[in-house]
Amino acid sequence: MTSTRATLLQVAERAGVSLASTSRALHGTGASKEMVERVRAAAEELGYSPDAIGRSLRMKKTFQIAFAVADIGNPVYVEMLRAIHEVLDPHGYRVVVMSTGDTATSTGELVRSLSSGFVDGMIVVPLRTDDELVREIRQAPVPVVVIGRAMDDQGISSVSTDSAAGIGEAVRHVYSLGRRRIVFLNGPRETTPGAARQRGFDAAIAAEGFAAERVETETVNDFTVAAGLAAARRLLARASGPADRFDAVVAANDLLAIGAIRAVRELGLSVPEDVAVTGMDDTEIGQVFLPSLTSVSLGSAERGRAAARLMLGLADDPDQPSRQVAVGPTLMVRESTVPASGAGTGKGA
Amino acid sequence: MTSTRATLLQVAERAGVSLASTSRALHGTGASKEMVERVRAAAEELGYSPDAIGRSLRMKKTFQIAFAVADIGNPVYVEMLRAIHEVLDPHGYRVVVMSTGDTATSTGELVRSLSSGFVDGMIVVPLRTDDELVREIRQAPVPVVVIGRAMDDQGISSVSTDSAAGIGEAVRHVYSLGRRRIVFLNGPRETTPGAARQRGFDAAIAAEGFAAERVETETVNDFTVAAGLAAARRLLARASGPADRFDAVVAANDLLAIGAIRAVRELGLSVPEDVAVTGMDDTEIGQVFLPSLTSVSLGSAERGRAAARLMLGLADDPDQPSRQVAVGPTLMVRESTVPASGAGTGKGA
Repeated sequence: MTSTRATLLQVAERAGVSLASTSRALHGTGASKEMVERVRAAAEELGYSPDAIGRSLRMKKTFQIAFAVADIGNPVYVEMLRAIHEVLDPHGYRVVVMSTGDTATSTGELVRSLSSGFVDGMIVVPLRTDDELVREIRQAPVPVVVIGRAMDDQGISSVSTDSAAGIGEAVRHVYSLGRRRIVFLNGPRETTPGAARQRGFDAAIAAEGFAAERVETETVNDFTVAAGLAAARRLLARASGPADRFDAVVAANDLLAIGAIRAVRELGLSVPEDVAVTGMDDTEIGQVFLPSLTSVSLGSAERGRAAARLMLGLADDPDQPSRQVAVGPTLMVRESTVPASGAGTGKGA
Repeated sequence: MTSTRATLLQVAERAGVSLASTSRALHGTGASKEMVERVRAAAEELGYSPDAIGRSLRMKKTFQIAFAVADIGNPVYVEMLRAIHEVLDPHGYRVVVMSTGDTATSTGELVRSLSSGFVDGMIVVPLRTDDELVREIRQAPVPVVVIGRAMDDQGISSVSTDSAAGIGEAVRHVYSLGRRRIVFLNGPRETTPGAARQRGFDAAIAAEGFAAERVETETVNDFTVAAGLAAARRLLARASGPADRFDAVVAANDLLAIGAIRAVRELGLSVPEDVAVTGMDDTEIGQVFLPSLTSVSLGSAERGRAAARLMLGLADDPDQPSRQVAVGPTLMVRESTVPASGAGTGKGA
């Protein structure tokens, strides 16, 4: 099949159009008359075999790959999407974004409804996973790559990261800065990310030599700015005075962290002087926020690229054995935990 | 066709599953055996006519609507998408997001490649429009609704806004605050939004009684935070001193405005005391930014809902006459132009 692709690619290059356009022109679907003539001329010049055209037709390639996430409004998914485009675009694939919904069941329904006439494969980031979803993925009519937890035992190709270890890095970072009253702001614990991050937080504070004055977890029902803002306001209102107030917030993602910073600043307190705040995902908006956000990068672009490369392999040969890629966490220290030497951050007017 | 839909809806309700699942089960595509049995049983109980099933099959409804934008990373599109979901989800439609690319040609190619077997319709936000694209939209195999400029003269259903008037409101707002050295930070002027916003800025400063000391336009090649940051840094570096520096930035969108705020704060200057900044689109991230962003709302959620409602009508009857909806701008005044009475904004530490 690789050789068919290579030949199709040569035709595309000769015609000076994209692979997807070449495919559409040869299939006679959705291409202008001019495009069809141009591509057919190039195919003839190169002696592109009618057999290959026939094979390509039988393959019914759509040159579309689905990217399915719970909420494309979360910038971490946008960064993955850009990386997926970067890998798939040069191969003539179009990426379509779909919503999995919040549950394992709705994600499973999406996987089941895929047909090879619609997309050639799917990269999915499930917020929640259960046995039924795993079964749906294994039985899917097109190849599926999962970004989330490792799925080697299920024979599913996946790209995983270690967000538990990442939260551990954030906790040790604020601890090393002398913070002893630490709040962990987490999203729903029964989600895949929520569960892993809680595990990471609990392990970090249970580690030998860790001696905080106070440690608590505040769980909210959404990984959003609004949820982080509301939760941090609630916690701040509960404190009887500065000594009773947290001096660090470790948030389960950047959006929750931004909500927490906003709540702290509303009270006239400073970040990081009064309260240090860390996020997770290292999003662009966290990088440009005021103060800029210390965040644990989980390599969203790298994970997107890795998933897209696995998908390219499976689109060529759906029967190849499943493969696993793991991307490690990296703490990015910025102004929300360590004051900038210059201006531009810190306490409110 | 409405009556067919209603009956299908009754079957869906009886079976206790979504309209989309019901449709798939009756079409025998992408539904589990259990689902097919359940839906067929419900159809039988209700005496759902085989004729109707036949008609539905001939319709080949996919219950998928495409939403096509240049860059789903721009939060304004995410807000439109949420509103589109809100309207379409209860009708059993799934929304798939696609990239138009940056050009009118790439947008046209996307429209042309649509087929009724893939989606039942498309809501598109073209960044650039030319005659060829208009022709592609008119000849598209499925109904298309445009969010952008009004297209009544072309017989295309559209949802438009008046971003020119919106920029005028922002200019008059900073002028009313006593700002007399105003920079307009715009994206590419040959795009539909760039051209309209430039027109609005030029009209506002040409209006009678408007007497600024200095007015300039800085054009960047992208509507992003990074582009706004780089442009504002450049402008600030050029100023020989405070009297030579702008005291207001009117930005063509929220992302450019956030970049400008960041550049101003990097120099230890305050927002809004030294420089007032306005954005456009009224995004969530602008609302929670520090300082929160004064922004011209163009009703992105309202435009998304209106486009989705037009699409529902066209999906029922593709031959109905085109309709136009216009949504007006609203200035939302926040901390980036008018200091908050409390804390949480203003000058850097």
